[in-house]
Amino acid sequence: MPELRKPYLLYLGDAQYATDAKTACGLRDWCPTDVVGEWSLPTATVSVGLPRLSPADAAAKSAGSLVIGIASVGGKLPDSWVPDLLDAIAHGLDIVSGMHTRLTSFPVLVEAARTRGVRLMDVRHTDQRFPAGEGTKRSGMRIATVGTDCALGKKYTALALTNALRAHGAKATFRATGQTGIMIAGSGIAIDAVVADFIAGAAEVLSPANDPDHYDVIEGQGSLFHPAYAGVTLGLLHGSQPDWIVLCHDPTRTTIEYRPDFPIPPLRDAVAQYLAAARITNRGVRLAGVSINSSSLDDAAWAEYRTQVQVELGVPVCDPLRGGLDPIVSQVLGVESL
Amino acid sequence: MPELRKPYLLYLGDAQYATDAKTACGLRDWCPTDVVGEWSLPTATVSVGLPRLSPADAAAKSAGSLVIGIASVGGKLPDSWVPDLLDAIAHGLDIVSGMHTRLTSFPVLVEAARTRGVRLMDVRHTDQRFPAGEGTKRSGMRIATVGTDCALGKKYTALALTNALRAHGAKATFRATGQTGIMIAGSGIAIDAVVADFIAGAAEVLSPANDPDHYDVIEGQGSLFHPAYAGVTLGLLHGSQPDWIVLCHDPTRTTIEYRPDFPIPPLRDAVAQYLAAARITNRGVRLAGVSINSSSLDDAAWAEYRTQVQVELGVPVCDPLRGGLDPIVSQVLGVESL
Repeated sequence: MPELRKPYLLYLGDAQYATDAKTACGLRDWCPTDVVGEWSLPTATVSVGLPRLSPADAAAKSAGSLVIGIASVGGKLPDSWVPDLLDAIAHGLDIVSGMHTRLTSFPVLVEAARTRGVRLMDVRHTDQRFPAGEGTKRSGMRIATVGTDCALGKKYTALALTNALRAHGAKATFRATGQTGIMIAGSGIAIDAVVADFIAGAAEVLSPANDPDHYDVIEGQGSLFHPAYAGVTLGLLHGSQPDWIVLCHDPTRTTIEYRPDFPIPPLRDAVAQYLAAARITNRGVRLAGVSINSSSLDDAAWAEYRTQVQVELGVPVCDPLRGGLDPIVSQVLGVESL
Repeated sequence: MPELRKPYLLYLGDAQYATDAKTACGLRDWCPTDVVGEWSLPTATVSVGLPRLSPADAAAKSAGSLVIGIASVGGKLPDSWVPDLLDAIAHGLDIVSGMHTRLTSFPVLVEAARTRGVRLMDVRHTDQRFPAGEGTKRSGMRIATVGTDCALGKKYTALALTNALRAHGAKATFRATGQTGIMIAGSGIAIDAVVADFIAGAAEVLSPANDPDHYDVIEGQGSLFHPAYAGVTLGLLHGSQPDWIVLCHDPTRTTIEYRPDFPIPPLRDAVAQYLAAARITNRGVRLAGVSINSSSLDDAAWAEYRTQVQVELGVPVCDPLRGGLDPIVSQVLGVESL
């Protein structure tokens, strides 16, 4: 995937519900200096609190792309959005989308982009060809976030960990594997869109050899315990060759989301299975810590839960939104405490 | 993938080495009644021992497809083969290929096939769209062959097991997941060509619900211990929901082929890891037996090795080429001995 052109104008279409704007909120929160403003149709009732800028205004502020910031759009591009997208193209902006249906499947956009010389960037897809995985060790350190399930904080944890490592003076890069992560980073590989034979190979390309004291923090996908997506999870883990894994978990979940017949194993078993899998390509892999989405727990319950898991697994247990990830950074950097 | 049109004319091009004709030999051996003959250029020095038939002669014998029976061709279609392929098309045969490069990327073939109304079938590829895996249990029994490595007999074992089950009166279907298997079966899914997100979903489509006493025998791919392909292996295993697994192994291999830094685990550990992975979608999964490529062992060494593994794992150990798979069939069917 070529680099996305920042900064971004976030597009909210005709969004009616705040939850629809998840992608826009992620960009606003994680790369605020890369976002110049938001734009939407007059019928929209949602804002993400940024300055309203038309495509013309955004172009005047050197915006490089209009990013569709709505996650719930599914495959359809509403006809009512097209004029705004054409307006952005006319002002020289690339269009960036995480929709299932490709921007390039809309002839009117393709023709306009071709004429104006801008790009339609479908970050959920990839036409890039990758080699098969080699398994050869690469220089530099790698940390992979892995999960007991999908959608419980692997991206958030990887981003927060990257920032925390940098805050403590370490060289660190967030490596994006999903569409929102790619928009935030401006680059990455939609790993679940790669042809199956090349999952590990694509993951190797994603975190190339680097300085020995540099940390790549790789956004995990899926879960080893998910009946649909574990293959992606395993191939990504193998190609990432992590020196450390951080297990992400939500204590309210006892079964895989939307699949009540699929239990989430005890954390101790989950860790053992992730480490066994990761050892295939890095025998030195270790658990750096556990990242918990503790929003369901009050302070007393969180303190108790945290202590219990720390004692059981012998590693730091953190919630990035509740005290941050410094104990995990401390574990990774091998310093006493931060 | 639509059904391939049998019977086949096997095409050997200008093959100079018997090993190049691996695909043709597989078809001759595993679906002999579906093969009418072979054809090659005058410069070829290899035969697979079938009657020589020109495309015209094959068409007169109701052949449905010319199958490129050469495995080592890589991506290139030699110019010298094109006249024979055009001749086959002119006589109404589909062309079937397992090459990396698609037949459909050769305009001269596309145009000829379009004009004559025949199909170019690239069995290594798939443009079919699959759903995400559901994980829902399907009726019927399933047996998956899995391996300590690639290329050590998973397809052969699955085919031999299907035949052995049928020989003992059971209803059984071989489910192909790689190009040679697909050519033999006439249908299947090239599982490593599927988009990563849909590996398990494609495997679910491959072995749909069936009679409760019917056995699908699913050709395994890759290995959980392979640094490049384990993601495919795991997704295929999850979607297959096997009731039984058969572990395939070659005792001469101590490391993954071509990857000397990647050890093959002890069989006991390999079985434990495969069963743990398979339990995600079928808690009742069991090991039916071990299929060994014992060609490196003399009779005494094979007897000793076999006994040792049988004692260690408590299941039948067989070589399909050396005594057959009846003990494994016996285990699966739950009968005393066959």
